[in-house]
Amino acid sequence: MPDTQEFRDEYARLSELTERGLAEVFPTTEGDPAARVIEAARYSLLAGGKRIRPVLALSVAQMLGCPLGEALPYACAVEMIHTYSLVHDDLPCMDDDDLRRGRPTCHRIYGEGMAVLAGDALLNLAFETLSAAALDTAKGTRSIPGGVEGALTAMKEIADAAGHRGMIGGQAMDIAGEGLGMTNERLVEMHRRKTGALLRAPALAAARLSGAAPGVLDAVDRFASALGLAFQIKDDILDVTAEAGNLGKTPGKDAEAGKTTFVTAHGLPAATEMLAEESRRAVGALEELDSLGYDVEFLKDLVRYQLERGR
Amino acid sequence: MPDTQEFRDEYARLSELTERGLAEVFPTTEGDPAARVIEAARYSLLAGGKRIRPVLALSVAQMLGCPLGEALPYACAVEMIHTYSLVHDDLPCMDDDDLRRGRPTCHRIYGEGMAVLAGDALLNLAFETLSAAALDTAKGTRSIPGGVEGALTAMKEIADAAGHRGMIGGQAMDIAGEGLGMTNERLVEMHRRKTGALLRAPALAAARLSGAAPGVLDAVDRFASALGLAFQIKDDILDVTAEAGNLGKTPGKDAEAGKTTFVTAHGLPAATEMLAEESRRAVGALEELDSLGYDVEFLKDLVRYQLERGR
Repeated sequence: MPDTQEFRDEYARLSELTERGLAEVFPTTEGDPAARVIEAARYSLLAGGKRIRPVLALSVAQMLGCPLGEALPYACAVEMIHTYSLVHDDLPCMDDDDLRRGRPTCHRIYGEGMAVLAGDALLNLAFETLSAAALDTAKGTRSIPGGVEGALTAMKEIADAAGHRGMIGGQAMDIAGEGLGMTNERLVEMHRRKTGALLRAPALAAARLSGAAPGVLDAVDRFASALGLAFQIKDDILDVTAEAGNLGKTPGKDAEAGKTTFVTAHGLPAATEMLAEESRRAVGALEELDSLGYDVEFLKDLVRYQLERGR
Repeated sequence: MPDTQEFRDEYARLSELTERGLAEVFPTTEGDPAARVIEAARYSLLAGGKRIRPVLALSVAQMLGCPLGEALPYACAVEMIHTYSLVHDDLPCMDDDDLRRGRPTCHRIYGEGMAVLAGDALLNLAFETLSAAALDTAKGTRSIPGGVEGALTAMKEIADAAGHRGMIGGQAMDIAGEGLGMTNERLVEMHRRKTGALLRAPALAAARLSGAAPGVLDAVDRFASALGLAFQIKDDILDVTAEAGNLGKTPGKDAEAGKTTFVTAHGLPAATEMLAEESRRAVGALEELDSLGYDVEFLKDLVRYQLERGR
């Protein structure tokens, strides 16, 4: 982590804002006969985690002048989508994982059927949240620089990033491609969809909410796309270098499953160099935004933080 | 089925409109490395079925003066949500069913992991479709009487109906309550959420798109809520009276699993009487709409069709 106190404080502030937002999305379960699925969804959603996706959404919104409170529902929705994908990914019929964010996975506690439903509930809740926010904007009770078109464009781009063209498509490639070996082109495409799309979406969504001009949108897009790829390369590196206690999930699983990763495809030194290259690309896009007068310090630190993170 | 040729023709017209709409939602899979998840989703989505939810949306839209083409994305989205819930419900960790709509279930063909993802993709695609339609309305390229507020209210109500307060909550009650016996109150609540909510939502959504006045909305709500409960009671009756070849899914499963149904709770004669009562309630609400000058003939026939259906 970049050792500036400002960065650490700001990251903490934005991730705590997210935690509070996420804690409020579920109603009280008292007397609700469907309480168990809500508990299962809440168990996974409030298990901590880095919250890098909502922090990205909030920090880009802040940079571009969209009030944080207005961007928060979008930030939370992306984190719900990310969490549902983990819950389903951990199922025995998928990656079959017992450990996630340092705790037993959802299905280990609540059973497989309930974990399927909890994941479904989180995905659905993301769109309940997005619809409610956009409706408030249409009614004028939630005011964002990008207006109702910005709100709906953000929602549509988040949906596209999460769907078969994005994350779900990447997961499908992952399942279909296990153990078969993959060309580098295919590997990059898989990760662009599986991980990259849902890291790019919160940054882009924040730009839409902010009513950003095309040139700004484009720079945010290049920044977030490079950061997303760097994030996945870093994950692949951590899968072979980190310890379980530190990682919060089972390390070495990808290698064991015979999956193609940036490390198995290129080796650790080349993967490390690719990570540095994508991080430089991300910083380059930020420098363009800097030259347009935006305050990019936190996002620059975020790139370095992700480059150096130990979990 | 009510034996008027008009009803049959109109049902066929609206369900064929839906089939064409659904067939167009997926892109060509040629060259897409994630083709298999799209094929799995398409396999389940285009397996036929009664399409009663989209037919409800389209016929209510027609009655209230919203162009069919404008209501179609909403009709299709609800059918995608319904289909995803079947794909996940059929999984071995849920109802463990081999047969659906007369064909092997999704996971029997594509494997469990891919079926989880195909369900996820369908739920996500529903919201991609809804977001795109609402964005078109905001941009003015899709014009509906209810405007962008109507579009977003429809989307939000569909999301609520599909989520933990609605369908997913009902499924969770179903899983948690298997074999335990249920009070009638609890049983009605489970079915209101599990089946009723997603039959009510397309009718209400159509009313929102049409910019319906509160009195009209309320009558549509009571009509669709009663029809939804009648639909579930009919399903419970068919589970014990129909044959597999006719039903298109495995009959007798609920009784075997020790699930509480309207038939196990009340017996066949009382369940049949409840079905008739809910159908009368639905027709009563339609007669109010009739007195306001709306053409309710098709919807009246629809209530009778659902009362008498053999699958």
